[in-house]
Amino acid sequence: MGLWSFLLQAQSLTDYVNPFIGTKGMGHTFPGACVPHGAIQLSPDTDTIPHNVNGVYQKEVYRYCAGYQYDDKSIVGFSHTHMNGTGHSDLGDILLMPTVGSIRLNPGVKEDTRTGYRSAYEHTDETARPGYYSVVLKDYSIKAELTATERVGVHRYTYPEGEGNLIIDLNHAIYNYAGKVLWSSLRVENDTLLTGYRITNGWARVNPVYFAVSLSKPIVRYGGKELSPSAVYKGFWRKFDQEHNFPEMAGRDLRASFVFDCTDGKPLEVKVALSGVSTAGAMENLKAEAAGKSFDFLHAEAERKWEEALSAIRVKGDSDKMANFYTSLYHTLINPSVYTDTDGNYRGVDQNTHQAGDFTNYTVFSLWDTFRALHPLFNIIDPEKSRDMLASLLQHSQQSVHKILPVWSHMGNENWCMIGYHAVSLLADGITKNIPVDKGLALEAMLSSSNLPYYDGIASYKKLGYVPLEENASAASITLEYAYDDWTIYHTAEKTGEKAIAETYKKRAANYKHVFNPANGYACARHADGRWMENPDIYDTSGQGFIEGNALNYSYFVPHDVKGLIACMGGDRAFIRGLDNLFTDTLPASAFEHTEDVTEEGILGSYVHGNEPSHHVPYLYMWTSQPWKTAERIREIFDKMYQNRIDGLCGNDDCGQMSAWYVFSAMGFYPVCPGSDQYVFGAPALDEAEIRLEDGKTFRITAENLSGQNKYVKTVFLNGKPYTKAYLTHQDIMNGGTLRFVMAGKPGKRAYRESEKPYSLSNDIN
Amino acid sequence: MGLWSFLLQAQSLTDYVNPFIGTKGMGHTFPGACVPHGAIQLSPDTDTIPHNVNGVYQKEVYRYCAGYQYDDKSIVGFSHTHMNGTGHSDLGDILLMPTVGSIRLNPGVKEDTRTGYRSAYEHTDETARPGYYSVVLKDYSIKAELTATERVGVHRYTYPEGEGNLIIDLNHAIYNYAGKVLWSSLRVENDTLLTGYRITNGWARVNPVYFAVSLSKPIVRYGGKELSPSAVYKGFWRKFDQEHNFPEMAGRDLRASFVFDCTDGKPLEVKVALSGVSTAGAMENLKAEAAGKSFDFLHAEAERKWEEALSAIRVKGDSDKMANFYTSLYHTLINPSVYTDTDGNYRGVDQNTHQAGDFTNYTVFSLWDTFRALHPLFNIIDPEKSRDMLASLLQHSQQSVHKILPVWSHMGNENWCMIGYHAVSLLADGITKNIPVDKGLALEAMLSSSNLPYYDGIASYKKLGYVPLEENASAASITLEYAYDDWTIYHTAEKTGEKAIAETYKKRAANYKHVFNPANGYACARHADGRWMENPDIYDTSGQGFIEGNALNYSYFVPHDVKGLIACMGGDRAFIRGLDNLFTDTLPASAFEHTEDVTEEGILGSYVHGNEPSHHVPYLYMWTSQPWKTAERIREIFDKMYQNRIDGLCGNDDCGQMSAWYVFSAMGFYPVCPGSDQYVFGAPALDEAEIRLEDGKTFRITAENLSGQNKYVKTVFLNGKPYTKAYLTHQDIMNGGTLRFVMAGKPGKRAYRESEKPYSLSNDIN
Repeated sequence: MGLWSFLLQAQSLTDYVNPFIGTKGMGHTFPGACVPHGAIQLSPDTDTIPHNVNGVYQKEVYRYCAGYQYDDKSIVGFSHTHMNGTGHSDLGDILLMPTVGSIRLNPGVKEDTRTGYRSAYEHTDETARPGYYSVVLKDYSIKAELTATERVGVHRYTYPEGEGNLIIDLNHAIYNYAGKVLWSSLRVENDTLLTGYRITNGWARVNPVYFAVSLSKPIVRYGGKELSPSAVYKGFWRKFDQEHNFPEMAGRDLRASFVFDCTDGKPLEVKVALSGVSTAGAMENLKAEAAGKSFDFLHAEAERKWEEALSAIRVKGDSDKMANFYTSLYHTLINPSVYTDTDGNYRGVDQNTHQAGDFTNYTVFSLWDTFRALHPLFNIIDPEKSRDMLASLLQHSQQSVHKILPVWSHMGNENWCMIGYHAVSLLADGITKNIPVDKGLALEAMLSSSNLPYYDGIASYKKLGYVPLEENASAASITLEYAYDDWTIYHTAEKTGEKAIAETYKKRAANYKHVFNPANGYACARHADGRWMENPDIYDTSGQGFIEGNALNYSYFVPHDVKGLIACMGGDRAFIRGLDNLFTDTLPASAFEHTEDVTEEGILGSYVHGNEPSHHVPYLYMWTSQPWKTAERIREIFDKMYQNRIDGLCGNDDCGQMSAWYVFSAMGFYPVCPGSDQYVFGAPALDEAEIRLEDGKTFRITAENLSGQNKYVKTVFLNGKPYTKAYLTHQDIMNGGTLRFVMAGKPGKRAYRESEKPYSLSNDIN
Repeated sequence: MGLWSFLLQAQSLTDYVNPFIGTKGMGHTFPGACVPHGAIQLSPDTDTIPHNVNGVYQKEVYRYCAGYQYDDKSIVGFSHTHMNGTGHSDLGDILLMPTVGSIRLNPGVKEDTRTGYRSAYEHTDETARPGYYSVVLKDYSIKAELTATERVGVHRYTYPEGEGNLIIDLNHAIYNYAGKVLWSSLRVENDTLLTGYRITNGWARVNPVYFAVSLSKPIVRYGGKELSPSAVYKGFWRKFDQEHNFPEMAGRDLRASFVFDCTDGKPLEVKVALSGVSTAGAMENLKAEAAGKSFDFLHAEAERKWEEALSAIRVKGDSDKMANFYTSLYHTLINPSVYTDTDGNYRGVDQNTHQAGDFTNYTVFSLWDTFRALHPLFNIIDPEKSRDMLASLLQHSQQSVHKILPVWSHMGNENWCMIGYHAVSLLADGITKNIPVDKGLALEAMLSSSNLPYYDGIASYKKLGYVPLEENASAASITLEYAYDDWTIYHTAEKTGEKAIAETYKKRAANYKHVFNPANGYACARHADGRWMENPDIYDTSGQGFIEGNALNYSYFVPHDVKGLIACMGGDRAFIRGLDNLFTDTLPASAFEHTEDVTEEGILGSYVHGNEPSHHVPYLYMWTSQPWKTAERIREIFDKMYQNRIDGLCGNDDCGQMSAWYVFSAMGFYPVCPGSDQYVFGAPALDEAEIRLEDGKTFRITAENLSGQNKYVKTVFLNGKPYTKAYLTHQDIMNGGTLRFVMAGKPGKRAYRESEKPYSLSNDIN
């Protein structure tokens, strides 16, 4: 046992994780408690920015995608659902807040915590670890601790001696607006058990969240109020006092309070089970996961689950790197999240209850982001979860009225967020990497998804070979992404022996060429009649036919045919010049002013790492005559954009994609073209990394002589033998073995031979 | 075969039914199509009075409880759920309206049908029969026909040649108000199938109605609009055109239109299956009941079901009496209505989905009305349905957070409408009459219901023996009704050998005495300290401690102890004088001005027949020295309040209770005290009546010499033998046999001996 192994055993991997990273600025992460891919993300919310006030959109809502901003001085309460680093806000379901003294049912204003139930807090009184969060609520001298199981949020509130209150605010929501809550209901089943639900119309178009709450102390007295002004009917319904100790409450804006006797000094433990199906489902979840188990026991369980999940990759590096790596790995293991009850029931996108049978249904698929590296990562470190996620996608397509795979799957809803039909990439990557999936059903769903005529210009795309600008303001970026997606279908059809389909999609995969403007070598939007958009501005992110990006960055999105892309851009020299410019040019300040997903921290020269379309771009040098520049760029990105600081993330974590980029890149390779079996080499950031594989195998990566200066890969050895290709294959990893990088302060290999370069579609065509 | 039997065979019983009776004035009946106790009541709505406009209550809403008023000149469309004669409005779910020409998505104003999709119609173009309704929509020259199965509404629209439209307005509702619709959803599954749902917050607190619609012609094109001003989020959700031919629509105020090619002259047949559980449930209902069956076939089925149901009692009388009787019997067979899918799933009051197993779950229990005569009628003519209804009540109590039987059960909700816990009466009557019911569970539910401390003064009632006025404005009437309800529990506990419980409730059953004011012999509200209300006005219906009634009428509500009541009122002479006054006095005009449930047509002297509390009162003479007066009063009620006219009902039919009174009374007896096994004699209105019993038995009633003048019962023969008691027993009927009334123009029996009089609790006490 070497020193390193010894050290690893001495310290838990969870110790390296800092859930606060990304909570300051625009990381949109949350610091609260969850278990890997659990349905529960129980976390403090510091502000409740409504989506709009009197119809006026509140821009600040974007900062509060995860409900928590580190700079805020007060906490509103603890709600049970949060997304990890999304670029759109929602959820924040079922808020609990412990208080003492007179009952307040409104959160109050941020400037003065005395105006409501919210409380001030100090970061010095705050702890966040995987599966555990605690804070002291200063206004009430209450210590609040949170942990979670997959489907149960677990609270422990230590009140001062005397009476303690528990507020349940069923109106609280992230991305709230007047009327977001369509209906809510709360039943006091007995003095230690509540059930209920609420249905919201938020980003998730209609999201019913059912709950069951068990309490470790009996309720002494309780009350509820329906505060909605539009609930005109309530007065008629209520023939006797239903605001005090009446066990059945409902309405559009329901707030309830419960009082407990805390003179014995014992804390109140509250277990909140959620279900997307029914309160009966929530009860089953409560029983299956938390009944009879103490906070401490469940906290230890959560810790154990995280330790187990994080040990999928054991790495060595300096403390900052360890923190970066394990915090990144932690962030990749939050979304997608479980959306199935313990009994297998789940709510489908047809809003019917389905029985999953042999798989676990997942939701929160931010596919435009996560097809790139997050799902490829799962295919290495957790093929079983990947299998279930792919099954979830296929079930979605069966239940969808459009019969398509999800675009952005969110609590049994299709959010239609961003572009493309990237679920096909997940299926293709899964099939390539031997994840068990019904291939026939997969291909059928891929075909439906890529032929839905009314979705984002597909009808015209099929006719013209590109989406025309007059049909869609994001036409050029859509065309690029459709072409890649079509490549994954081509690839899958080939694998499954569907030659005719393969032929069709092989052609469609080359459609990206239709939007490359020979005048400047960049992608450009076109009109239906073939004309190029006039006076294109390759820097501007608005009105140029690209979504959340500019031509300067987006043009590189041809991951499946870099060789063809290089040709479109004028050949090797021009291509390198273009990439160099991208990474060194200064972007005009105006370029991203319309795109809230991109912040200054996420920009390197003109390269935008803070948003996804360019994530693979630093790896594209590997196809050129100057491959070592990949290592240079990646090191710059490591140093600037992944820092062990609370504001260390350069942009939204985007459900783990930003973090998955780091996890791969830090190990020295990246899945530039998911669906292929190749991982393109970059340059490692870690001295050592060991991937745990199925059947007890491991894949061990070492980076010899790695240092601040030694950022270049000089030579590579696979299983002890010199390795000359620009990429690893999936099988190379899954076989187990060792990968040895020898690092140097100067560039190594001058260029790869054609046969050593990674995959390009052009090779299949020519 | 006698002439009468021959005639009956020649004409269908359904021919006697006139569904229009009660649609003019305050009968609150609907003319549309349903099958007995079906979940569907598919009927034209003529106006959509909102519950309020800008917060101001619209009194007219009361007239539109069933959605249709005969005097209206236009029809808005055809919706699928209606209640029969309730005193509160709701439902009107899933409105379909066929039109031609340009698409209108608003109903338009009543004064000018050109302002919206509504259409004028003429009564000469309108037909209503059991299970069938048709009308010509003048504005569009469309013939609309409706029929139904238990769970499927079936439409046949014959359009003029050309294109025909179908509007589906998911905002339409009876008892509508801005925001009643919490959420609605519509999916175009394929060109002949739609699914969807809407959730309302109306009188039914939260009512999800799921549907599946099959179309006999393919949709040519379609569209949808979300018109709610508060749906701020819709713009963000919709990234491409979702208002035209986009198969997924949703919102708070959703209207959709579908266009069909009707150039072939063939009508469009539309089948709309409903479910309270899910769209999957609605699909199952559609398949099980209507798939592959034509309108004509389903219409014939509906006709057959009604003929079968009405033939439970075959009667003879003049044409007006036949119309009155069979229309009344028809009205008793609408509510309660099925609330279970064909697969046995139903939505419980806990809002979870339950599997009914071996019973059919029912809803729309207007128990304050229907415990009196409607449910006793079912115990004779359809014990099996009664069994299921009692099982439905018990399941409700199991699922209720209060663990109580329903007060007013409405689509999986507790409406808390009116007073008492009269479900106990149904259980007691069912047990007495050998309806199979879990007696242990029944008694447990009875005890919970009668001991719920926070419900309408029960805690004080148990302590003081009456509900004090300061606690409840209806205190005196509540006390009277609790005492009767408690008697049914006493009776049940005795039957099941629970002596201690029987003793407790025997005492509670006498609680009515605590509100009889010795000063005037009428019931009177009391304060908690025992003081009587000062200056009680026995005529006034408002502020006197009685709900929907005055002391003059309500004081007689002691059906379980008429002997004790007579004593409270000063003995036989005083009691008769009081009853005579009641039926002959003129009620001051002001007396009922605060009570919308009582109209002038429903008042006889000061006796109020148009509302329920007095329905048994004419029978109370049978306990006195002048029993023949019962016959006089009943004849007066027959003549004034049940007429073969469209406005022939004197008040709300109240889910069949007004009609059940007629069905019983016309046969010559009435269940004055449900829970006992006795039917007290009145005087028949029919020459002959034959009740079909189980096992092929019949109970035949004849009224010899019955005429306008011969209204008195001279003698009675049971199975050929002279019969001297004032009542029949349930067993007398169920044994089968004959009951022969000999009528006369002068009073017959002067008085009954004590042993011949019907039951009184006082006999058990003394």
